[in-house]
Amino acid sequence: MGKKLRIGMLGLGTVGTGVVELFENYRYKVQQITGLDSCLAKVFVRNSHRKKALAERHHLTLVTDMAEIINDPTIDVVIEVLGGIEPAKTAISQALKSGKHVVTANKDLMAQCGIELQQLAKENACALYYEASVAGGIPILRTISSSLSSDAIEIVYGIVNGTTNYMLTNMTISGLTYQEALLEAQRLGFAEQDPTNDVEGIDAVYKMIILTQFAYGMTIKIDDVTRQGITHVTASDIQSARKLGYVIKLIGTTLITKEGVAVDVAPVFIAKTHPLASVSNEMNAIFVKSTGIGESMYYGPGAGATPTATSILSDVLTIAKEWQSGRLGQSFHTFDTDTKLIPKKSTRGKYYFSLSVPDEMGIFKKIAEIMENQQVSLKQINQEVFSPDAAHVALITHEMTLAQRDCILAAFRDIPDVVVHAYYKVL
Amino acid sequence: MGKKLRIGMLGLGTVGTGVVELFENYRYKVQQITGLDSCLAKVFVRNSHRKKALAERHHLTLVTDMAEIINDPTIDVVIEVLGGIEPAKTAISQALKSGKHVVTANKDLMAQCGIELQQLAKENACALYYEASVAGGIPILRTISSSLSSDAIEIVYGIVNGTTNYMLTNMTISGLTYQEALLEAQRLGFAEQDPTNDVEGIDAVYKMIILTQFAYGMTIKIDDVTRQGITHVTASDIQSARKLGYVIKLIGTTLITKEGVAVDVAPVFIAKTHPLASVSNEMNAIFVKSTGIGESMYYGPGAGATPTATSILSDVLTIAKEWQSGRLGQSFHTFDTDTKLIPKKSTRGKYYFSLSVPDEMGIFKKIAEIMENQQVSLKQINQEVFSPDAAHVALITHEMTLAQRDCILAAFRDIPDVVVHAYYKVL
Repeated sequence: MGKKLRIGMLGLGTVGTGVVELFENYRYKVQQITGLDSCLAKVFVRNSHRKKALAERHHLTLVTDMAEIINDPTIDVVIEVLGGIEPAKTAISQALKSGKHVVTANKDLMAQCGIELQQLAKENACALYYEASVAGGIPILRTISSSLSSDAIEIVYGIVNGTTNYMLTNMTISGLTYQEALLEAQRLGFAEQDPTNDVEGIDAVYKMIILTQFAYGMTIKIDDVTRQGITHVTASDIQSARKLGYVIKLIGTTLITKEGVAVDVAPVFIAKTHPLASVSNEMNAIFVKSTGIGESMYYGPGAGATPTATSILSDVLTIAKEWQSGRLGQSFHTFDTDTKLIPKKSTRGKYYFSLSVPDEMGIFKKIAEIMENQQVSLKQINQEVFSPDAAHVALITHEMTLAQRDCILAAFRDIPDVVVHAYYKVL
Repeated sequence: MGKKLRIGMLGLGTVGTGVVELFENYRYKVQQITGLDSCLAKVFVRNSHRKKALAERHHLTLVTDMAEIINDPTIDVVIEVLGGIEPAKTAISQALKSGKHVVTANKDLMAQCGIELQQLAKENACALYYEASVAGGIPILRTISSSLSSDAIEIVYGIVNGTTNYMLTNMTISGLTYQEALLEAQRLGFAEQDPTNDVEGIDAVYKMIILTQFAYGMTIKIDDVTRQGITHVTASDIQSARKLGYVIKLIGTTLITKEGVAVDVAPVFIAKTHPLASVSNEMNAIFVKSTGIGESMYYGPGAGATPTATSILSDVLTIAKEWQSGRLGQSFHTFDTDTKLIPKKSTRGKYYFSLSVPDEMGIFKKIAEIMENQQVSLKQINQEVFSPDAAHVALITHEMTLAQRDCILAAFRDIPDVVVHAYYKVL
């Protein structure tokens, strides 16, 4: 009889319940692969009464004091599914300090305090894994840190927030307004009552910070990321995109050049033929461009109890394998380099502008002159007259810097009777 | 000064040249990640004269006798890119026996002699990795053996042959015939002069055998796979698919039920909305359905010197990491179970039938009766009259067994004046 891997879990919400429900099958798999027996020894909950039925069904030992897990010397692995910064941060820190391996799905925490916790893990020769924190069921972090680590990644971009993708899909397919799409997503449980973190792109920023660390070994802060949510996306923007051959998606991007990295979250125009354009509803997908492989994409469910719980248990299985081979305590992401940021004003992109202009002679010449002054050329232009004396003009440009874009915007706004309705980055 | 990882390579064709060209950058990455220095110590070629310029440019030491690599005690890792069964098999066997770790891209060999070579690797506590053998640049094998190993895979299917996908894309988009598409693929170097292995689905069968081992721990033989190539796919089949909302792709499938596994390679109808439908040209993509994650997909280049070389070097990097942590000699795929096959006649699928029928009363009733006798229901039906006395009928059914399909086919052929033009599985 060998040693048993004893697991303690902090939290028993949606994802925690998923872990409990998958655990029996998982335990069999771990035994099959590593020969190691494992058990879910204790689960911390705030209110044990509310979880009584679930605990009885799965023969769980509930505790209402986290210390009973963190200070228990027989517990080897702690799964943290509380979410948020505190008390999760303190609990994880204490667990690492007492030599326990930690698995977490907490993107807020790992994006904001990852470095500190990783340092603590290293000092205590413990594993700290968090595959489930980015794109739920897609094993993107381990893929980058193992399979892609011999390659040189140039850019990582994708759909990393299921809530907003669900809303934008509904706005595109069913023609809903932003408000209608939000209400529908809330009704179905895809959006929270306070949807700020999702719709303002904050959740996506956390994930891009973690992806940046894995792709380039660089640690960036929340304020280093340019961020725009989807709250201002209108039905007419989506229609205009469609006419030009695009769909609008909330895209997180992290790219590297000789100057440094630039990380961005914003709704962008994506050509309908791009593999990301057909990623619908709550699905996530991450596109990677690297020197060796070229283009690759990883697609799967971005959230949900079962996919997230599976990613958590996959991390625990990795710990079990490393335990068997005595290889524990390696960093999850493979390397670190000094962080260098591309100055925001010199990040480059193609842009879409939507303007209404007076339907009069010379207006196109003025637009053309503005573009020429900034030495930016146009890729596509589409005009529709919608009243006797006004027209709607949609422009798609070739590449320019953010500084050029801002000059162009200011110049457009200086023309009398011209209104800039919207502008988006184009992928 | 630590130990240096010394690598010998057998072969310097397209992929071998890719390895040589990527090596300098790769060496830097390995050092950054593991602290280990590495070098490409010797390369075996049949004719050193023809490779002289390349060797000089990259300061390679060429040898024309494989023994100089295999018997060299200072070589730690052997990369095999000769292809084919012999002499690759003997060379890999000898390398493993003398304690060298082996990386290969050889799908023919690993599909046919994988078990034997893996056993040899195990006996000698050596690594034997072959990520590049399936879907070139897509890290699908390591993803299955690490991230997905805590999950229960139910089915793996996808586009695993770039040549045929390139041809079918061309037939779909440009309306080429099979022969025209083949000539074009040969002209561009996507198809070989003897295209049999690709167009008859044999290459795809090799890859599905390897994927079956990784997904279910089961070892199957070539004859266990039902196989159909694309040589009989006509422009009118593709048009008929389009009208019904499908595209035709050569799909490899490996699925498991309580009865066992069933592995199949065939051109199939895929709904246009399915993520695999937009995988074009020489790209590959593998779709996985598992209990925990649900649906996930892995997309990337299926072949090409640089992607394949990157996968090979990623395997070598894994060896370097495991070398550093003393964890070498683990099996690449995670587990083995007894192989159980679903009897071919009871494998299930939806089917498309294309018939020409006399344009007369009662013919639809006959078709309906045949379906009813087999207790199979229809999902879609499309009829076009193409001459005063004949019509083309396209049927798509709900699920049935292969045995039922064969009964239906026989019954159709028994109706006077009915011709069965084609039938395909529908995904």
